[in-house]
Amino acid sequence: MVPAGAPTQKTVESLAKLLDADDAIVDGGNSKWTDDKARSALLRANKVHYVDVGTSGGVWGLEVGYCMMVGGPQRAVRRLAPILDVLAPPTAPDSVAALGDRGWAHFGPSGAGHYVKMVHNAIEYGLMQAYAEGFELFTQSEFELDNAKIAHLWNQGSVIRSWLCELAARAFEEDGNALSSLEGWVEDSGEGRWTLQDAIDHGVPTPALSAALNSRFYSREEGDYSARVLAALRNQFGGHPVRKSGST
Amino acid sequence: MVPAGAPTQKTVESLAKLLDADDAIVDGGNSKWTDDKARSALLRANKVHYVDVGTSGGVWGLEVGYCMMVGGPQRAVRRLAPILDVLAPPTAPDSVAALGDRGWAHFGPSGAGHYVKMVHNAIEYGLMQAYAEGFELFTQSEFELDNAKIAHLWNQGSVIRSWLCELAARAFEEDGNALSSLEGWVEDSGEGRWTLQDAIDHGVPTPALSAALNSRFYSREEGDYSARVLAALRNQFGGHPVRKSGST
Amino acid sequence: MVPAGAPTQKTVESLAKLLDADDAIVDGGNSKWTDDKARSALLRANKVHYVDVGTSGGVWGLEVGYCMMVGGPQRAVRRLAPILDVLAPPTAPDSVAALGDRGWAHFGPSGAGHYVKMVHNAIEYGLMQAYAEGFELFTQSEFELDNAKIAHLWNQGSVIRSWLCELAARAFEEDGNALSSLEGWVEDSGEGRWTLQDAIDHGVPTPALSAALNSRFYSREEGDYSARVLAALRNQFGGHPVRKSGST
Amino acid sequence: MVPAGAPTQKTVESLAKLLDADDAIVDGGNSKWTDDKARSALLRANKVHYVDVGTSGGVWGLEVGYCMMVGGPQRAVRRLAPILDVLAPPTAPDSVAALGDRGWAHFGPSGAGHYVKMVHNAIEYGLMQAYAEGFELFTQSEFELDNAKIAHLWNQGSVIRSWLCELAARAFEEDGNALSSLEGWVEDSGEGRWTLQDAIDHGVPTPALSAALNSRFYSREEGDYSARVLAALRNQFGGHPVRKSGST
Repeated sequence: MVPAGAPTQKTVESLAKLLDADDAIVDGGNSKWTDDKARSALLRANKVHYVDVGTSGGVWGLEVGYCMMVGGPQRAVRRLAPILDVLAPPTAPDSVAALGDRGWAHFGPSGAGHYVKMVHNAIEYGLMQAYAEGFELFTQSEFELDNAKIAHLWNQGSVIRSWLCELAARAFEEDGNALSSLEGWVEDSGEGRWTLQDAIDHGVPTPALSAALNSRFYSREEGDYSARVLAALRNQFGGHPVRKSGST
Repeated sequence: MVPAGAPTQKTVESLAKLLDADDAIVDGGNSKWTDDKARSALLRANKVHYVDVGTSGGVWGLEVGYCMMVGGPQRAVRRLAPILDVLAPPTAPDSVAALGDRGWAHFGPSGAGHYVKMVHNAIEYGLMQAYAEGFELFTQSEFELDNAKIAHLWNQGSVIRSWLCELAARAFEEDGNALSSLEGWVEDSGEGRWTLQDAIDHGVPTPALSAALNSRFYSREEGDYSARVLAALRNQFGGHPVRKSGST
Repeated sequence: MVPAGAPTQKTVESLAKLLDADDAIVDGGNSKWTDDKARSALLRANKVHYVDVGTSGGVWGLEVGYCMMVGGPQRAVRRLAPILDVLAPPTAPDSVAALGDRGWAHFGPSGAGHYVKMVHNAIEYGLMQAYAEGFELFTQSEFELDNAKIAHLWNQGSVIRSWLCELAARAFEEDGNALSSLEGWVEDSGEGRWTLQDAIDHGVPTPALSAALNSRFYSREEGDYSARVLAALRNQFGGHPVRKSGST
Repeated sequence: MVPAGAPTQKTVESLAKLLDADDAIVDGGNSKWTDDKARSALLRANKVHYVDVGTSGGVWGLEVGYCMMVGGPQRAVRRLAPILDVLAPPTAPDSVAALGDRGWAHFGPSGAGHYVKMVHNAIEYGLMQAYAEGFELFTQSEFELDNAKIAHLWNQGSVIRSWLCELAARAFEEDGNALSSLEGWVEDSGEGRWTLQDAIDHGVPTPALSAALNSRFYSREEGDYSARVLAALRNQFGGHPVRKSGST
């Protein structure tokens, strides 16, 4: 679990020199799936396996187990299974038919695990954004609504109950309805961007995922120049009636 | 629980003639919250109470309890409490501090319950759309991915585990990865539209909720005329080089 | 030309008392078309006509003529024609077949003029937003690009040449590439909102027009609460591993 | 002017073998600007220049001149100037200060021309989409509106007058309000996608440009799988009340 990008690349390159045939490198970080494919091809020359394990669940995984999305060669993944079994949650009864007796899943060759994780994160952005928009509306309502109470209630059997809604309930309860301890500055970690690039490559419309990423850009004051262009144009409509020759 | 709109309005008007002071009408349907306010004002003349109970959970509520978002006068809601207690799920331990010992919540005067339910549904559209976009991406991937397996795995401790993701797992399992038994024609029931109108009224950006509603419009072949306009314009660029006098 | 809303309503009501049968009120402001319909119905009782003239062109209209979109009864519009003829630009040769010899157009009964104007303004928001996004990209480019030069060039025969692009060229030229004299705070005047409400009512997808309005909301720091909700949720994922009983 | 991608790449490679030092290749097609940079680097080894000329204006350019956005080394561009001067329109009086006496512009090293052209096309998509959404609304209006008449009128001095609006007027006039000769199937040529990738790379919010591209994807029935996922989920809410053990 090394930060994605250069640190992972360097680590893989260093390890590559030390490893023997049939050894495996497990990347449990958030690498881009196309990097996995490149690394896997590189290591294959030395018969070293590359296993990508996209991992979700946050710090809570320690309690409830980690959700692990695995890519890599069968042989290496099979050998890794006992470790993954320990880290994963026990399979829910409903999921045994689909997942077998393990709480993790192997999705294909190297890259497949991080691909599924990448889209997972983009969906995560989308879900978060949908809740966030709704909770902002409540702050503007003529009713004096309490977001903690709403989030808690929604986890009582509503269609939109979810772990994120449980976290929202907890956040509102801890910080109060105004969330005043926080600034509205939201980073993104790359997977949302890669997902949108993938969507563009395949011509798949992803307006909600795109909205979620753009809202993070707006939160970081990107878009300010655009807004100044709009202001400048509005200014021009109503501005000094300088003669404009040559216009239609 | 009468369909929203005219049927509810007529029912309320008929009941109004039959009820005595301190009686209450409970609207468990999906009325627009502004209609609740109007009806409540009407009935107040006869001292009849109007209680709006936004209800979520679908047919599954019979098993796990219904999520009920309540608006209306204190007095009438208090009297209704024993019934709501039976219909609601037992309060989750974590939610007792926020909700007390009841699995439902009273949010304010008439209209408040349906207001919270309205936004709930708009969020529901947003969440569904985020998952749907992600699952479509998987169908285009170079990896041969199985959406049932992915949805099941995500419910094993991932950040995006949710009841909707459980339903997705079930849907893919029942119908297969291609969802071939279904057509991509998606209705909307009004709450998403009302939520966006409310967002517009308050100047709250809701790009993800808006994307979700627009995607339903697209699914019903709305937007086709727009697309023909685009095609017509493209045709004009590349079309016969007819002389265009008067253009800039 | 009275500000839309209460000022126009009051003016219409005052005038109504003074006018005789077959007199006409001309509303050249930016009234909501549904208000026009209501006023028209009101005045009809006294046989007074209501003519709505949506007007576009900004302060430049004094030089090039005003674009006028007219609604109201035939009889009253015909009587008004000589005035409109003076205010409108001369009809472009290409447009004579469609518009006749007049540079303005009558679109239907009271409300039709402002309806066409309303959508005009929503499109205006969309066009402005498209340019603004593009110009912001240029400020981030590895090439050292000059937006004034680009905007001027685009007006030299490109597909996206337009009056707005001429105004952009002028704005960049006057204020410099950084537009540093302006703040990125953009008002909206109502028509964009009404158009989106109309689109929602008719189930017409309007993602670009919606994006344009939302970007104005973002420019005014709306959306900040949403962003704090996102930050709060991110904080919860990675936060203190407090035991979360009752979660799935 | 060879189609972008492999055909251009092959042509450049073939020409590279035939050219001498100080010769130049001019790419007047729609290459991706990063390809220009790579080709330029390749050719530099042989001291061959690479000049990218993004060109806009469609078939109408023959009449009014072509809008040309140029990248490449000073020396080669200067030599090419007489040809560009002939192809470009005469500079509008207002633009002489910004552009000098030429109707085309040189924006920087190889790649800069196609970069500006790429964003031009994305803006073009955005403008087209904004108009298209507005014109679709008119088809749903209670007023019987004629899009040809509206488009013609808007070119008479309105804020949204543009060459695209002139083309729209022509298209509606030729094909009638229903645009019945066309199908709502809209291709995209790559630049819109590359622009969005660039926006993602720089963290610039581009919701309107993104909406425009997604609308083209929708027009080609992409998004249908997403819609089936939504339908499947709706079906699950209201479906057979099969016991769902293990759900929250």
